[in-house]
Amino acid sequence: MALSPESEKLLAPLREAVKEQGDIVRQLKENKAPELEVKKAVAELKTRKKVLEDKELALRPEIGKFDRSKMEDTLKRRFFYDQSFAIYGGITGQYDFGPMGCAMKANLLAAWRHHFVLEDHMLEVDCTVLTPEPVLVASGHVERFADLMVKDLKNGECFRLDHLIKAHLEKVCSEKKTTAETKAECADIVVKLDGYNKQEMAEIMKKFNVVSPITGNELSEPIEFNLMFQTSIGPSGHIKGFLRPETAQGIFVNFKRLLEFNQGRLPFAAAQIGNAFRNEISPRSGLIRVREFTMAEIEHFCDPVDKLHPKFASCADTEMTLYSACDQMSGQPAKLIKIGDAVKQGVVNNETLAYFMVRIQKFLIKVGADGTRLRFRQHMGNEMAHYACDCWDAELLTSYGWVECVGCADRSAYDLTQHTKATGVKLCAEKKLPAPIKQSVTEIVPNKGPIGKAFKKEAKTITELLSNLSLEDIEKMEAELKTGEATLTLEGSEVKLNSEMISVKRYEKTVHVEEITPSVIEPSFGIGRIMYSIFEHNFKVRDGDEQRTYFSLPPVIAPLKCSVLPLSNNPEFSPLVADISSKLTESDVSHRIDDSSGSIGKRYARTDEVAIPFGITVDFDSLKAPHTVTLRERDTTMQVRIEVDKVGETLRHLSTGRISWEKVTQQFPKFEAQETKS
Amino acid sequence: MALSPESEKLLAPLREAVKEQGDIVRQLKENKAPELEVKKAVAELKTRKKVLEDKELALRPEIGKFDRSKMEDTLKRRFFYDQSFAIYGGITGQYDFGPMGCAMKANLLAAWRHHFVLEDHMLEVDCTVLTPEPVLVASGHVERFADLMVKDLKNGECFRLDHLIKAHLEKVCSEKKTTAETKAECADIVVKLDGYNKQEMAEIMKKFNVVSPITGNELSEPIEFNLMFQTSIGPSGHIKGFLRPETAQGIFVNFKRLLEFNQGRLPFAAAQIGNAFRNEISPRSGLIRVREFTMAEIEHFCDPVDKLHPKFASCADTEMTLYSACDQMSGQPAKLIKIGDAVKQGVVNNETLAYFMVRIQKFLIKVGADGTRLRFRQHMGNEMAHYACDCWDAELLTSYGWVECVGCADRSAYDLTQHTKATGVKLCAEKKLPAPIKQSVTEIVPNKGPIGKAFKKEAKTITELLSNLSLEDIEKMEAELKTGEATLTLEGSEVKLNSEMISVKRYEKTVHVEEITPSVIEPSFGIGRIMYSIFEHNFKVRDGDEQRTYFSLPPVIAPLKCSVLPLSNNPEFSPLVADISSKLTESDVSHRIDDSSGSIGKRYARTDEVAIPFGITVDFDSLKAPHTVTLRERDTTMQVRIEVDKVGETLRHLSTGRISWEKVTQQFPKFEAQETKS
Repeated sequence: MALSPESEKLLAPLREAVKEQGDIVRQLKENKAPELEVKKAVAELKTRKKVLEDKELALRPEIGKFDRSKMEDTLKRRFFYDQSFAIYGGITGQYDFGPMGCAMKANLLAAWRHHFVLEDHMLEVDCTVLTPEPVLVASGHVERFADLMVKDLKNGECFRLDHLIKAHLEKVCSEKKTTAETKAECADIVVKLDGYNKQEMAEIMKKFNVVSPITGNELSEPIEFNLMFQTSIGPSGHIKGFLRPETAQGIFVNFKRLLEFNQGRLPFAAAQIGNAFRNEISPRSGLIRVREFTMAEIEHFCDPVDKLHPKFASCADTEMTLYSACDQMSGQPAKLIKIGDAVKQGVVNNETLAYFMVRIQKFLIKVGADGTRLRFRQHMGNEMAHYACDCWDAELLTSYGWVECVGCADRSAYDLTQHTKATGVKLCAEKKLPAPIKQSVTEIVPNKGPIGKAFKKEAKTITELLSNLSLEDIEKMEAELKTGEATLTLEGSEVKLNSEMISVKRYEKTVHVEEITPSVIEPSFGIGRIMYSIFEHNFKVRDGDEQRTYFSLPPVIAPLKCSVLPLSNNPEFSPLVADISSKLTESDVSHRIDDSSGSIGKRYARTDEVAIPFGITVDFDSLKAPHTVTLRERDTTMQVRIEVDKVGETLRHLSTGRISWEKVTQQFPKFEAQETKS
Repeated sequence: MALSPESEKLLAPLREAVKEQGDIVRQLKENKAPELEVKKAVAELKTRKKVLEDKELALRPEIGKFDRSKMEDTLKRRFFYDQSFAIYGGITGQYDFGPMGCAMKANLLAAWRHHFVLEDHMLEVDCTVLTPEPVLVASGHVERFADLMVKDLKNGECFRLDHLIKAHLEKVCSEKKTTAETKAECADIVVKLDGYNKQEMAEIMKKFNVVSPITGNELSEPIEFNLMFQTSIGPSGHIKGFLRPETAQGIFVNFKRLLEFNQGRLPFAAAQIGNAFRNEISPRSGLIRVREFTMAEIEHFCDPVDKLHPKFASCADTEMTLYSACDQMSGQPAKLIKIGDAVKQGVVNNETLAYFMVRIQKFLIKVGADGTRLRFRQHMGNEMAHYACDCWDAELLTSYGWVECVGCADRSAYDLTQHTKATGVKLCAEKKLPAPIKQSVTEIVPNKGPIGKAFKKEAKTITELLSNLSLEDIEKMEAELKTGEATLTLEGSEVKLNSEMISVKRYEKTVHVEEITPSVIEPSFGIGRIMYSIFEHNFKVRDGDEQRTYFSLPPVIAPLKCSVLPLSNNPEFSPLVADISSKLTESDVSHRIDDSSGSIGKRYARTDEVAIPFGITVDFDSLKAPHTVTLRERDTTMQVRIEVDKVGETLRHLSTGRISWEKVTQQFPKFEAQETKS
């Protein structure tokens, strides 16, 4: 994982440059400098970080050797996935998973469910995609989930504004006639681009006469484009709805039911797997930025003042690559550190957050991510959502750079508080007090007889209103009662109550619990991004044969676990092949029989390309009792000879990772060189 | 399944009435009577069928005993599912699945995948929900997927028109002042309502002065309301898209890739599990009619002139309850018949369709549907989509009547043909001819030199165009060449070609294959409807205790397979409970430890309500070596005493249905009456 000393030497000045700017930002913040000044300094810091990161990437040997177009060709040819609606010209940012991709995705999700939901007894839910507007107003998505764009005034084509300005100014810089002064100005703007607001961007557009790079037409003013897909629910056209941009809100709005299901006890975690939708202005980078994608999210609800985790002790020694905000500010590389130490040092905010980070790391490695290309990067203050108190992204290194695959945030009480505000429904839990306390209570006692007589149907509403009044309101009414009638506002109109109808009561009560709004720790997985990164980490070329490529996916997520290949289409093989197939089915081992013509070697090459980890060959020796077959492993291409009766259980255990291939080679005799001979 | 002779006696006159009208319809069709006359006769037939069916239902004992509100209360209280966004007032037609419903749904889908996809090596895909308009224009959904509605002109409230007219005319009939003549007219219209078109319905509205039943306001003209949710894809607002109303189209547009994946061979089946969306005008009946739902669909592609199925022979003796179109026309009840005979008699169109019907029946029973409340109803000519050549719905009997849960249709070549027309991309397969044939070919041979010289960049397009000309076009050009230059139309403008540039070549070639557009057999599953029906079929009340209800779900789809209950919260039990839990996890048995206080009996009642089929109790005897526990089965409440070491594998086999509870009771000693004692 760490780079060589020579590489580090090359990086040293870049690290220094980051540190220098990081110190400036820190200083400005300490001095409470004007916001704009801080923003610009942060933008400069980001640029220096980017230069450092690009250089780091360039120095990593994995990236240089990797041939993306070769891998993408295999994925497309063997229909792991491909662009949706291709026969209609395709739609950018949408992909269909073919048989291999779909099976792999299903296995990945099953592994996720097993690793997280079953292991920690989480409450999994399945909520709807269509979401009415008020829910997303409360969550903040209607107001804030937007990017700036501009439109070609003649043909309506849209551009993401930050990308457009950057490209335009780079073009200006590259022109001969541009003065050194202008070049410097452009470079400065590009560096600070992230820090500008809508107004400032509009001014830059005007100043540099930014037009459509395609038609040369004039462009509109910057528009905030909300990234949610909008539709209307029901026939009237009046109920505005959106396709959910994340699955989390479905869990928050069900909090009360879930808490009840958990018999009122904290902490507990809910989980959800499902699709979310974001109308990206210009999707790109294949599966990494798409308009429709599968997420798997966990919302762990816990006591805001007690974020200890009972299982943390058992994993505190796990080593993780952490890239803290502080190290990012100082130009330091990510550090390998025991998670227990990171919590002790305050690098990671709390045990629960840290526990999930460990679980995420274990999961990613289990499903095939390369641990040396995994890091946890902490959000810096300026990137963190305003409600989060700590946030770490699990990033996987790909040919697109470091890709955020899992976010792990402490969202504090933000979401539950927002939905409570919007609906008036209390979303909180009861916490037992260490010792009971006395509490003084002031309340209005309604006298049902006179109220019922005076207000008939409305009596019930009035009684309810009375029981929800604040202390201040009660005291105001109490004062009014002394001089006559008290006034209550009922759906806009005023109601008069006299002292026959109500009285004020004061008493002490013993309270055993307090109400708390739980904190939420949220690990959020982008399934497509994880799949893409796993493809890259597992794409291999056979030594000495550039044409033979394969995916070294772990058996647990391989689309199919086993292939069954009769040596030839001699009908003598058929009964044994059928017998093996039914034995595999009985042991829950998904498999495919390939009795097509072609040498065994060629057929193995084909199954290697779709990542099938094990292959059984039925040959003439297999026909003799006791029946045996060869069993081959994909990555090593080693083979053993194994009894047909042991095939089912052996493969079941290999597929679920309960035994290793190494163990199998010790148990059964090695079988030599069938593959090259045929 | 069959009703008693007394019941049949009551039904006899209703059956006769259906038969009489069925004969009239047949006669009219034979005589090629005017369409409207046929439509009205069919509407009358439908009404008589409805009267017959309602009476049949009323005579079935299961329906009378069932208490829907009691069941729904349990489902809601234990959070199997509930209305979405309830804290925001809820949205009709949308439901969230809670932990128990979600786990059951996941198990149901896993069982589906196992039963269909793995068993028949189907190609499963996972396509996007967002679908661009042209795809759904080609499929016919943009034009035809609509219901008629009217709007209140003042407040915009919407009503489904057929429901509204029916309610209005029934009200007119019930009024005293209405003349006998008008009453007869209204009754006649109600009977024939299904047969009227938009114009006729508008006239009825005018004649009877139909206004909003809620406000009394005037209503709009009838509007065809398309049931698809619309949105726009991308930022420009110009790419109209819909949320898919079914998953099938995703498979059709990927047909070429799938055929290629299957190495060009027919038949093969593709499958997809995913969400679909329909903007119902007025959703109701709980999970049965909703706006967002999970479907599981199979598209089996086969040779249109060979719909035999290799596995059909092995299931031809399966008995099924078939309700044929002919029996429906004649007022006959559904018949129990061997599927092989049904195909022989031509009742079911072909073997492949019949094979899937058998598989559907097996699946539904495996996941808990009551076989005596299952029938396959054939679509009558007038209900069948215009492209289908035969269609059978698997219907399950519930308190809402017979609910269509699975459709099984032979869609012929309709969809592939439509998408070919829309895109120009050939969606067909090659079929080997019984013997090679000679075919005469006429083609234009381009002379690349002169064409390139004359047309530069456009030369390639011209060459391509030339290779795609019809025989007619070629002969026309040949004639033109004789007298000078031939004309070719290129993107609207005309291009002149002379005899130096092109020549016409005629030859014979030997052809080994022909191109065919495959037929599609489509089994299509509504997952929510199946779940709802299974809930009804498995909701039970314990003998002698009205308050103790439970769901007798088969272990394979039960949300959790096992509960682990320590007799008390004595810490001595903890290590053994932890040991059992890890043994269960190792054997892939999902389970829940319930160490809450409350008697064992009470805790069992709670696990019964969420359908957990097996329960382990750890008692003081368990602490002695060799460690044993009691194992209880939910439906019988019988218990056995079993060694802790055997718990994992025994429960794994019980959960997957590989061994029966009966077998377990023979293997292990019975344990008496713990439950009632505690």
